[in-house]
Amino acid sequence: MAARTADVNQQLPKCEANYAPLTPLLFLERAARVYGDRVSVIYGDLSYTWAQTFERCRRLASAVSMFASAGDTISIVAPNCPAIYEMHFGVPMAGLVLNTMNTRIDANTLSVLFHHCETKAIFVDLEYLPLVHKALQIWLSSSQPPGKRPHVIVIEDRCIGSGAGSTSSSSKKKYLAGWGELVEYEELLQNGDPQFVIQWPADEWDTISLNYTSGTTSQPKGVLYHHRGSYLMSLISIHMMEMKEDCVFLWTLPMFHCNGWCYTWGVAALAGTNIIIRSMDVKLMYELIAKHKVTTFCAVPTILNMIVNAEQHIKKPLPGRVNVSIGGAPPPPSVIIQMEQEGFSIFHAYGLTEAHGLVLACNWKSEWNDLPVQAQARLKARQGVCHLGLQAAAVLNPSTMEPVLWDGVTIGEIMAKGSTIMKGYLKDQEATRSAFEGGWFHTGDLAVVHPDGYIEIKDRSKDIIISGGENISSLEVESVLYQHPDIFEAAVVAQTDSFWGETPCAFVKLKETGRIITPESLIVYCREHLPRFAAPKTVIFCELPKTATGKIQKNVLRERAKALNPAAQQSSKL
Amino acid sequence: MAARTADVNQQLPKCEANYAPLTPLLFLERAARVYGDRVSVIYGDLSYTWAQTFERCRRLASAVSMFASAGDTISIVAPNCPAIYEMHFGVPMAGLVLNTMNTRIDANTLSVLFHHCETKAIFVDLEYLPLVHKALQIWLSSSQPPGKRPHVIVIEDRCIGSGAGSTSSSSKKKYLAGWGELVEYEELLQNGDPQFVIQWPADEWDTISLNYTSGTTSQPKGVLYHHRGSYLMSLISIHMMEMKEDCVFLWTLPMFHCNGWCYTWGVAALAGTNIIIRSMDVKLMYELIAKHKVTTFCAVPTILNMIVNAEQHIKKPLPGRVNVSIGGAPPPPSVIIQMEQEGFSIFHAYGLTEAHGLVLACNWKSEWNDLPVQAQARLKARQGVCHLGLQAAAVLNPSTMEPVLWDGVTIGEIMAKGSTIMKGYLKDQEATRSAFEGGWFHTGDLAVVHPDGYIEIKDRSKDIIISGGENISSLEVESVLYQHPDIFEAAVVAQTDSFWGETPCAFVKLKETGRIITPESLIVYCREHLPRFAAPKTVIFCELPKTATGKIQKNVLRERAKALNPAAQQSSKL
Repeated sequence: MAARTADVNQQLPKCEANYAPLTPLLFLERAARVYGDRVSVIYGDLSYTWAQTFERCRRLASAVSMFASAGDTISIVAPNCPAIYEMHFGVPMAGLVLNTMNTRIDANTLSVLFHHCETKAIFVDLEYLPLVHKALQIWLSSSQPPGKRPHVIVIEDRCIGSGAGSTSSSSKKKYLAGWGELVEYEELLQNGDPQFVIQWPADEWDTISLNYTSGTTSQPKGVLYHHRGSYLMSLISIHMMEMKEDCVFLWTLPMFHCNGWCYTWGVAALAGTNIIIRSMDVKLMYELIAKHKVTTFCAVPTILNMIVNAEQHIKKPLPGRVNVSIGGAPPPPSVIIQMEQEGFSIFHAYGLTEAHGLVLACNWKSEWNDLPVQAQARLKARQGVCHLGLQAAAVLNPSTMEPVLWDGVTIGEIMAKGSTIMKGYLKDQEATRSAFEGGWFHTGDLAVVHPDGYIEIKDRSKDIIISGGENISSLEVESVLYQHPDIFEAAVVAQTDSFWGETPCAFVKLKETGRIITPESLIVYCREHLPRFAAPKTVIFCELPKTATGKIQKNVLRERAKALNPAAQQSSKL
Repeated sequence: MAARTADVNQQLPKCEANYAPLTPLLFLERAARVYGDRVSVIYGDLSYTWAQTFERCRRLASAVSMFASAGDTISIVAPNCPAIYEMHFGVPMAGLVLNTMNTRIDANTLSVLFHHCETKAIFVDLEYLPLVHKALQIWLSSSQPPGKRPHVIVIEDRCIGSGAGSTSSSSKKKYLAGWGELVEYEELLQNGDPQFVIQWPADEWDTISLNYTSGTTSQPKGVLYHHRGSYLMSLISIHMMEMKEDCVFLWTLPMFHCNGWCYTWGVAALAGTNIIIRSMDVKLMYELIAKHKVTTFCAVPTILNMIVNAEQHIKKPLPGRVNVSIGGAPPPPSVIIQMEQEGFSIFHAYGLTEAHGLVLACNWKSEWNDLPVQAQARLKARQGVCHLGLQAAAVLNPSTMEPVLWDGVTIGEIMAKGSTIMKGYLKDQEATRSAFEGGWFHTGDLAVVHPDGYIEIKDRSKDIIISGGENISSLEVESVLYQHPDIFEAAVVAQTDSFWGETPCAFVKLKETGRIITPESLIVYCREHLPRFAAPKTVIFCELPKTATGKIQKNVLRERAKALNPAAQQSSKL
């Protein structure tokens, strides 16, 4: 008798016809084949088509494959520019790992990270050549085994209107003298092979990129992305943002941050157009939205705050529906309200580097359309629900690993599992093991689950303030501060207190309204809107320190709060 | 010295936190958790929420797991109804394989297929109980080794307005007497466990369903779908149709056809609402679109032909944008024009059972918006470009496996490869090997590639007519016939001719216009619009035979053309 059907149908093997490793590299080849003459990239007065971008990426791939062997790392230190976009395809197309460095990292750290990932080549935008020069000098002088010197490729920005920095091309000679010849990016491409045969990943679990965490709370860790996760996250991201073929995507988000939340690859999936800008500038942003009919951009809440507080003469009418993904930090509801009043459509998502960018999306329910604006904003400020690429996301009690009650009150840790979680941390088995303990990725973010299943962050575990035994969410105090008409930005951290253990300390940047605001008046204002124990005991007026992506650096503020001398504290305490 | 970075980062293993088999079963659990009180299914006067559907599927899973062991097959013979929708989740949730049978299969074939897949249980809608009764009698009386008798579960349609057939509940007693107790579907669910623990696939390559090809050209073959492909196709399908959360999907397509092109699972991914109807009825369709604000449905071209030719009093104003996916057969451009004139938005896609439903999508380019309507319809009638879930789709010369020129003229065979192609054919290694020869899935469809990379089908290889050495595309002849104001439907096949080898023979259904149309006048009409050799030599007026999904059965017509006696042929020949 023949074998059981059950066995027969399970035994059919995978073959080339019915199984291909999932990879976002496919998107570029398809865009070039089907939409070759559509515009892929606009950068100042420069633009390319998808056919050109594909050719440039193949030339790049052939060039970088000379520097390294399969699985090696290639680094880039650059702001948003065509080169960093092309690296997202060209480097993995050669079977190598792309490492985009945060441009705000100091030379010391940079030197440590170059060594850590054993980078084989460093691509550097001319503006950051002094920084890389310094980092490499530190490396050379350190006691670490030097290894082979990485190649250095300089990206010169010849384009008008890109906002490139002041380091002139001629001054580059004074850097890295004796390092060997500094190759120029365009020259490298010219010598590359436009017919380079793409090295498809042998396995979708192969590493595609290495992203060091931005380190708002700890030392940078090297997060490894896999082709499978990057492919899935690209599809999920474009789905979440309702992006269609021929979308126009404005790069207000640095591509070095989680590979641009995977939109680097996602825009290619749609053969959309990338409008690339070197750094965030509200005036330029409004101009480009109008000029290129931008459909989509991503930003952290502080950038949105800049947009809504921009002077009126800067703002231009929107050309149509503009979808904005907010992420990177919990947005105050007041900022969401103002953005929607400006005509933007807000999609709020939550994620972190270890998750290819995205974990939760605050999916909107049409039954909420009739609620008052304030209520809608509060709903939209929640982090939301698990996206379709993960197996699960939940708020668990980290001791018992049991889900918390869906009561909107019980706090637990957000955890996630599934195919869009990183491979792990490079050369850090202990951190990897600890991040994946119990079969879940531990985000370190504390949250509640509302009765409707939507997750809302209460704080990062390090940001929670414990005062006299009460948990205070710094986010809730900040939300109240953001509603104050004279406050531009605010961040709240814990300050040590001999009696209460900790008390909230607020750092505030005021708007230039001409009105007189004192720390005392803000403390009184907070007491009117919060339980007394949750109101800040100290208020400091200052500029808030930020990461390159615009996230407020609470670790820096925490240090400042610690360093405040008792007299200074006294002055603004009630 | 430490291991090379390249080796370290490749070695990080998959674990529960960062790897989960892709499966569309996730969508149901997520829909129930997040959108539990949203309506999942509407069927006549019956409706369920996603929480209820999830509970019913878990009960079902616990019940079917009693009938079979991992990997076994469970069959269903039913039109669209809540039970067949629930089977799409409940059966694979028990680790079993879902086999949805085409309800138009005759009892003989059905008996062969039940035996072929060694089904462990047959779920049958009361209307089809006589058919299944007959099939099982044939099985019992056949000389085949009987194996264990499958369980039979009867689905009784208690709902008002569902259009259920005439077989009354009380008459079921006369069927399958002696077979053992016939369990009723709702009773089975009542005894099932609402807390059943889902058996997630151990491997995403595990089989999720078995779909026998509809056999327009050959014997049915058992196509096996895998969890990975079904998951990906669900995401791709909802992306292609621009479906959003809270879409309302009208089931004009039978779910037994490629698992409803994977929209069964796709609607759950969006927690949309399924409006289920037992069979296609234009009047009911218009009513339901208006009543439930339908956003999306799928149909084969002959169904669209019914819609555009419906009497005016039947048509109702559309409630908003209604997206329609056409597939299953190449649409005549005239039908596309008329559908868009009725206000529907047309998405044309091409696929087949072996590809989880979809291979190509005719992605629209905004630069085509300014073309004349006729030109737009011709562009939209093309099959299009590879979707994002495949590695590649191409038109190759099947002898050399080289791509054909993109000249819109050179004919080759459409082939595809990637993760949304089937595992293979059940118990048919030879057919599987041949289908996957050279590392590509061979579709058997002949096509050209236009200079812009868009693929257009010229015919199935069996449908091409070779007359005096000239290739005639039956589709082109049909397109001309569909433009005739008095023709409702047309199909063209080859007829043997002693001189020419083959000549085109047209089968035509006329509209009831009252005008007198003769076969001769249609032949003259075709000669005015086609090269002389491509005009039909024979025209027959008749009803066109169709498959359950509404595809015209060209194999039946080919037999009829063969059987035409010379005298009959003469009568309509010029």
